[in-house]
Amino acid sequence: MLSKNKIKELTQLHLKKYRDLQAVFIAEGNKLVSDLLLVFPCQTIVATEDWLLTNKPTATEIIVASESELKKISLQKTVQQVIAVFKQPNYTLDKKALSNSLSLALDDIQDPGNLGTILRIADWFGIEQVICSLHCANVYNPKTIQASMGAIARVKVFRVDLASFLQDIATKTPIYGTFLDGNTIYQETLTHHGIIVMGNEGNGISKELEKFIDKRLFIPHFPTDRLTSESLNVGAATAVICAEFRRRAL
Amino acid sequence: MLSKNKIKELTQLHLKKYRDLQAVFIAEGNKLVSDLLLVFPCQTIVATEDWLLTNKPTATEIIVASESELKKISLQKTVQQVIAVFKQPNYTLDKKALSNSLSLALDDIQDPGNLGTILRIADWFGIEQVICSLHCANVYNPKTIQASMGAIARVKVFRVDLASFLQDIATKTPIYGTFLDGNTIYQETLTHHGIIVMGNEGNGISKELEKFIDKRLFIPHFPTDRLTSESLNVGAATAVICAEFRRRAL
Repeated sequence: MLSKNKIKELTQLHLKKYRDLQAVFIAEGNKLVSDLLLVFPCQTIVATEDWLLTNKPTATEIIVASESELKKISLQKTVQQVIAVFKQPNYTLDKKALSNSLSLALDDIQDPGNLGTILRIADWFGIEQVICSLHCANVYNPKTIQASMGAIARVKVFRVDLASFLQDIATKTPIYGTFLDGNTIYQETLTHHGIIVMGNEGNGISKELEKFIDKRLFIPHFPTDRLTSESLNVGAATAVICAEFRRRAL
Repeated sequence: MLSKNKIKELTQLHLKKYRDLQAVFIAEGNKLVSDLLLVFPCQTIVATEDWLLTNKPTATEIIVASESELKKISLQKTVQQVIAVFKQPNYTLDKKALSNSLSLALDDIQDPGNLGTILRIADWFGIEQVICSLHCANVYNPKTIQASMGAIARVKVFRVDLASFLQDIATKTPIYGTFLDGNTIYQETLTHHGIIVMGNEGNGISKELEKFIDKRLFIPHFPTDRLTSESLNVGAATAVICAEFRRRAL
């Protein structure tokens, strides 16, 4: 049985302020919660009796609830069997991995859904560290968590001053960025290590960061002689760029 | 000045029922509305005086409104200068183009944002016709229109029974589809024409359509020997697939 107080306590976690107070985040749905349970300490699980019997989860607090009770906490349209609260992880940046593998740096990605999609792309393409600028969407936003589809359990996300970060790393590994006036990605040498900077949805990569970019990349549109003022959505662009880096390594 | 009745009339267009009654759709924002004005007959424009003076649009009805009045119709978080109602286009499927160029077919894409993102990808990669199944998200959903970023003005979208459609076209052009057990896309021969079928977010390509697929494609994850039960978001997958088809044509 879910008390009014507990419902309030859980729905508050949709807001950054309350998540950060307790250093937790909230996630819904069978696949997502199951993925996260493998990795993060779980503080609270609210689930149907059936779900609990099948999954036998470990958590500090376990509450049995009906689907209609779960609905009161849920942000999803479809009915959920489980909602859980996890401890926010506290990762240490692996500096060696930054120099010898591929990482993503995100310059003020605004949309939580885009951030989640990018984490899912990173996961698919074996990118283990994603460095967010200070003004990126919050990685524990429920929309990010849902869109990441559990990638958050495998991809480590950091939040740093991106200009200082790139300045520090600049001599150690190549830094790539996408620009509408960049060189077509298919004609560039792409290394198996480096940082790929993806820019903000509206403004692309900021002036402040542009000076750290060693290679300016461009995803050619089709036909290439067509004039266009358009661009790809940042998630779509990240997918194409990461796929191309990994194709070279096949 | 925006009357209460007009506000009601316009906000109703966020719902399919009311859009279809009048065969119209609603769009917001300077870039989007400007793009659409180049292509679709405009029924109503509600905009600030400044916007109207700068853009001098043609529409059956033009209403001057303040930003706070526009906010009452807007679905966006940021303040808008213009909201407009356009006639839904009535396209005829170009069957010849289906056989000699590249098109996308979407099997029950549920999320309106994903549909809009896919249209934007189609636009970038010069795909002019997108064929939606009957259970796809509605192309005139405001979230689709916004996510398409004006691609809707250049990409023609059709809604058909996809099984009958593929059956008809099967002998005329190759049909591609993405599957988690498909052949890596980099080792497949990809033609410059054909239909690429993209599947539903949760279930992929349905059994009913699977039999029409000539070539089963797969986007390799990295490292390729890693076991994974994951997948890419359908927008991200569409971007990688379209990019690869177009790379071959460079």
